[in-house]
Amino acid sequence: MSRWEPNARERLAKAALELYSERGYERTTVAEIAKRAGLTERTFFRHYADKREVLFDGSNHLQDLFVKAVNDAPESAAPIDIVAAALEAVSEVFVDRRAFARKRQAVITANAELQERELIKLAALSAALTDALRRRGIAEPAASLTAEAGLAVFRIGFERWVAPGEERPMWPLMREALAALRTVAAGA
Amino acid sequence: MSRWEPNARERLAKAALELYSERGYERTTVAEIAKRAGLTERTFFRHYADKREVLFDGSNHLQDLFVKAVNDAPESAAPIDIVAAALEAVSEVFVDRRAFARKRQAVITANAELQERELIKLAALSAALTDALRRRGIAEPAASLTAEAGLAVFRIGFERWVAPGEERPMWPLMREALAALRTVAAGA
Repeated sequence: MSRWEPNARERLAKAALELYSERGYERTTVAEIAKRAGLTERTFFRHYADKREVLFDGSNHLQDLFVKAVNDAPESAAPIDIVAAALEAVSEVFVDRRAFARKRQAVITANAELQERELIKLAALSAALTDALRRRGIAEPAASLTAEAGLAVFRIGFERWVAPGEERPMWPLMREALAALRTVAAGA
Repeated sequence: MSRWEPNARERLAKAALELYSERGYERTTVAEIAKRAGLTERTFFRHYADKREVLFDGSNHLQDLFVKAVNDAPESAAPIDIVAAALEAVSEVFVDRRAFARKRQAVITANAELQERELIKLAALSAALTDALRRRGIAEPAASLTAEAGLAVFRIGFERWVAPGEERPMWPLMREALAALRTVAAGA
């Protein structure tokens, strides 16, 4: 088998998720994932540190996207509008990812350790967002509150987007959640 | 040593926190905690499942307080005002707890496993708050967003309250954070 396998990373992720869904995350081994993908264990470890990392591979990318969108927002934008712009930018990369995201979510929901990992990743994302907002000159506690509010909208919008039967794209759902937050905060 | 020790629970918590602060959480044993408190290991395990639980003993109580305050809010209250009432009720129990809370926070900040535990407890609190709001007839996504927004205010208000040099009581800090959230959400 040659060192270079086309789409090895994606094939491994697809195989892993299939196996996690079929037999459970705990009962799946790296050897089985590699075999299902038609690749070797060595190739697996060239791409992922362990079987958990397959599920959280996108987290760093997501964080980079969020931070970049915050940095790129117009200078005059209000904090909440910066976050709205970031949510819109992030939503774009989820197009065509719903089937994958639904399976991934089901695997995570079934496993306490994975749920904890997800919480840790979200806390890191919140800290990165807060930093990016501070670097734009937004003072505390507004920077932290904007980041937390934005992440609450992201989590709730995401939950609705992956819910069974939901067919609307991500951004309208995020926008709706953001509008609901504004309504709530206004005391209506 | 008699089975009944006055204030055993509090003495153990105080001894544990002292030791965690002095020599680190990892390097402290239950035997040492019991000795410092002038009690036996058996007494320790009558009160706490393990040395980690000493630090999270208050979490269930906090959750009960939050939920009770949500249940007790006037029927006509808007979601955000329900959460404000809950934050005020919760703030009252922190009076005279700042020295303890500061030490606890320093121990948790120094240990990744304890930070994860804190995230898990906060996620459980968020879920309990959301449920309590739903039971009051608040629809989704408003219930989840109100709970998340309330918890963001709680976390940020709490962080400021335990910060070195901060002397204001908790409720004014929470109220300020809540006002900042309203300002942020209004797009100002």
